[in-house]
Amino acid sequence: MIKTNILKIEYNQIIEELKKINSDTILFVADHQVWSIYGKDFNFEELTGKKVIFWKAADGEKAKNFNDFQNCLEFFLDKGIHRNAHMVAFGGGAVSDFAGFVAATILRGIDWSIIPTTLLSMVDASIGGKVAINAKVGKNLIGAFHMPTNIYISESFLKTLPDTEMKSGMGEVLKYCFLDFGIYDLAMKKSDRSELIRACAEYKQKLTLEDFKETGIRKTLNLGHSFGHALEFIYNIPHGDAISWGMVLVFKLFGNEKNIHDITALKEALEMTDKNPPWQNKEFPVEKIMTYLSKDKKISALNSLDLILVNDIGNAVVVNKTFEEIQNALELNKDELRKFSL
Amino acid sequence: MIKTNILKIEYNQIIEELKKINSDTILFVADHQVWSIYGKDFNFEELTGKKVIFWKAADGEKAKNFNDFQNCLEFFLDKGIHRNAHMVAFGGGAVSDFAGFVAATILRGIDWSIIPTTLLSMVDASIGGKVAINAKVGKNLIGAFHMPTNIYISESFLKTLPDTEMKSGMGEVLKYCFLDFGIYDLAMKKSDRSELIRACAEYKQKLTLEDFKETGIRKTLNLGHSFGHALEFIYNIPHGDAISWGMVLVFKLFGNEKNIHDITALKEALEMTDKNPPWQNKEFPVEKIMTYLSKDKKISALNSLDLILVNDIGNAVVVNKTFEEIQNALELNKDELRKFSL
Repeated sequence: MIKTNILKIEYNQIIEELKKINSDTILFVADHQVWSIYGKDFNFEELTGKKVIFWKAADGEKAKNFNDFQNCLEFFLDKGIHRNAHMVAFGGGAVSDFAGFVAATILRGIDWSIIPTTLLSMVDASIGGKVAINAKVGKNLIGAFHMPTNIYISESFLKTLPDTEMKSGMGEVLKYCFLDFGIYDLAMKKSDRSELIRACAEYKQKLTLEDFKETGIRKTLNLGHSFGHALEFIYNIPHGDAISWGMVLVFKLFGNEKNIHDITALKEALEMTDKNPPWQNKEFPVEKIMTYLSKDKKISALNSLDLILVNDIGNAVVVNKTFEEIQNALELNKDELRKFSL
Repeated sequence: MIKTNILKIEYNQIIEELKKINSDTILFVADHQVWSIYGKDFNFEELTGKKVIFWKAADGEKAKNFNDFQNCLEFFLDKGIHRNAHMVAFGGGAVSDFAGFVAATILRGIDWSIIPTTLLSMVDASIGGKVAINAKVGKNLIGAFHMPTNIYISESFLKTLPDTEMKSGMGEVLKYCFLDFGIYDLAMKKSDRSELIRACAEYKQKLTLEDFKETGIRKTLNLGHSFGHALEFIYNIPHGDAISWGMVLVFKLFGNEKNIHDITALKEALEMTDKNPPWQNKEFPVEKIMTYLSKDKKISALNSLDLILVNDIGNAVVVNKTFEEIQNALELNKDELRKFSL
């Protein structure tokens, strides 16, 4: 398996880095919105000797559908590309999920690299080679494991990142704080953002290399994700926000008091001011959550699901729960959850 | 990487074998036509404790399109499957290409097995984990490498196989005769069909294990395929027939006298009576072939293509040819080719 090169670069070095890619053909997939801001700064003519084929992807999750997937594949194939072509995804996690799945399946797989432009992608989505599009019944259910060759991290892009996206990225940072004591420590000491980004990316890279196909330790990265994806789907909220509330939910149902204490302290240290869950003061959506979970990727048999729990910072475990146990726990706690805030 | 188990079984053992699959959920994808003959003999209720979800695929290559791919994925996902589900493809090479690509991408990949029902699939398509659907501009351009767990070979299915399909399968057998002296020898000694099937399947398995992602020795299995796919596309002829004429073409253009002598002798030994190429007495389609080749998966750079040549039986080599060289050779030989027969 490829070990991804995580390269911290300045924004104005990107073209120089692309020149080094060992291919005469670059398939460049850019997020629509990101391109509208930064496109003018990319002069592909500087890539002498390389043919650049450009595809503009829809904004964010909108790109991750079957039609766009097919259109993008047919577009590149029609240009007469070859197996040594190299794809470059430019944008947030959605565009790298999408472009990476095109890279995984075009001509049975070509090499690819990512220029992440969001915090979420820098710390999480771009690392580890999970690529996917969405199915009608759920997010990321159709995809592959396809490791990128290079990830070019330039924090300059964060200057133009909308606040909602910054906040969403912090949801994944919060997750890492529970998985690794080093990252927890950086957060509690209010270390600077660059250090946090580097630590999260390196931690995920480490787990990915140990367990590429997610049969063991890598599963812990799904902390907060089973409930999180359900919340993202039900309330249509940003991914990272959903993950942070997914963590709260799994901690409330199956975790311990300290988990909730830690999440409060960490959110304060990370300056995440959002204290009210999306379900607050509404009917708690037990049935919708159960329907969503029954189609989750992490279910391992017909009647159960692997959840991630955290005994203490840096000590996450995989726990199999039956749907019945989950439903009972939700029913039992739904009235308290309705009134809950951090 | 998984080493596929190639199991020779009797037809009536299939259900017993499926019982042994270590999963509580079987996604069964059957070729429409094959199912109309054999479906009545499959009683899935005997698979106690397993949930069987059944999808009937269109006949042959017709299944390998984007719409069917999407519909099949959404169908299975809607049933609430999980990552330990196991797919079983039942039919010829087209249905295993199709089902295997669904298995490769559903929930980022689940295990799968094949019950090949055609000669072509028994000796070639089912082995080695290449799975794909077709793009508008060419065959198998969208796919993955996804090794099957088990291949259950039961020659009983060949009893109902149409003659055209048997003949097509022999095209791939002919190819193996050039790659491996042992298979050549079996063919020339007119050994029985079972032995030939076993030898071809094992030979392909061996090369696949040495070079799963086709960066070296596995490429030799593409003998006849670059021109063959073009002929298949242009004349709408069965895959194996196209491959045998693709071999003739590459031998005539870039091979040696002995290649043509060998192909004549082997076709006689294998009782392949077809002596006239599909282009005979028609205008030789230089331009159409070149257009097709420019989008072939085996091109390795913008202006060239890897072809397979055979110095002598068992001694195949990969030779890179520019499109210009290929076009010149086609132009130079087109009048002779028009009149050529074996």
